[in-house]
Amino acid sequence: MLKLYEYSSSGNCYKIRLLLTQLNIPFERLEIDIIKRESRTPEFLIKNPNGRIPVLEIEPDNFLFESNAIMFYLSETTEFFPTDKFERAQVMQWLFFEQYSHEPFIATSRFSYMTGKAEEYREALQQKQAPGYTALGVMEQHLENHAFFVGDRYTIADIGLFAYTHVAGEGGFDLTRFPAIQSWIERVKNQPRYISIAHK
Amino acid sequence: MLKLYEYSSSGNCYKIRLLLTQLNIPFERLEIDIIKRESRTPEFLIKNPNGRIPVLEIEPDNFLFESNAIMFYLSETTEFFPTDKFERAQVMQWLFFEQYSHEPFIATSRFSYMTGKAEEYREALQQKQAPGYTALGVMEQHLENHAFFVGDRYTIADIGLFAYTHVAGEGGFDLTRFPAIQSWIERVKNQPRYISIAHK
Repeated sequence: MLKLYEYSSSGNCYKIRLLLTQLNIPFERLEIDIIKRESRTPEFLIKNPNGRIPVLEIEPDNFLFESNAIMFYLSETTEFFPTDKFERAQVMQWLFFEQYSHEPFIATSRFSYMTGKAEEYREALQQKQAPGYTALGVMEQHLENHAFFVGDRYTIADIGLFAYTHVAGEGGFDLTRFPAIQSWIERVKNQPRYISIAHK
Repeated sequence: MLKLYEYSSSGNCYKIRLLLTQLNIPFERLEIDIIKRESRTPEFLIKNPNGRIPVLEIEPDNFLFESNAIMFYLSETTEFFPTDKFERAQVMQWLFFEQYSHEPFIATSRFSYMTGKAEEYREALQQKQAPGYTALGVMEQHLENHAFFVGDRYTIADIGLFAYTHVAGEGGFDLTRFPAIQSWIERVKNQPRYISIAHK
């Protein structure tokens, strides 16, 4: 069975749980406490030399890291990844946008609040507001004219962007400014076999 | 003909030029001066709402952004992208590693030096040293036992990581500490139809 090494409240790990559940693929969850630096032990660095979660163990001692690469692996030949050449690249475009222009601001802000460090990191949090809102603005503009990110169908591009966007409020971002994002969040939540980030 | 909107000295744009040249696909180069904020004009934001280069215009008014997604588009059915399912995902794993754990530290440091802002951003440059060296360490460890990043063949994972690694010295990173990276750089430079980042 697939083994998912994860920190449950991480949006990057939630992406994999949501996709695996929607694909109806069973998996085992193994909690790695990143606060206790359990992803930086010599034992874990064999799984991912970059010391980050999630890691998917596909078969014994066969590991894949980077959440969006794991989603690609799991979805490439399914309904959650397009068959059209240009649309396939567009899914990747939005996933790279997510990791470069969205996650470093919106996800890390949420992590500071969740770990009780918002006061300590007040200046860093302040600096993340503008780029975070820029990313949300790019999404809003796209969603004003599209039901989903690529091909007007639900794909892993939506899962990738949904994971941290729908909980952006926990990192100090106000989603009420973004009505198209809010409607899209509802569309994602209404997908078959949807599970929440808190689902056990 | 394909049109590449680029800032020539950007490693992200060089990735696309190198791959297109090695694929023997003709393309037109259009310079966007990011120092003059030409990637943030209303006209350019139609091409990429996120205001970044490179952008590939595949046919009139059909644009793709994010360098690694553009490489995926161009290479997916070629020798530069694997056919094996797990290896395909491994290429993506290294490309996401590049954009999340490597480029934000190594590429942006080089940009500060290139634009004469090293003194102004001294503190930020200092903060980028540790994560930049961590990324180089992850690469070094992998390359100690592998000729290339995936499947021991040259793929877009190598192009993606090569673009900013081989010029990391321009951003204040000392590559002499990394003999396996240095050997790999030579292997990349010896690939057929290789062009340098300065090639006109």
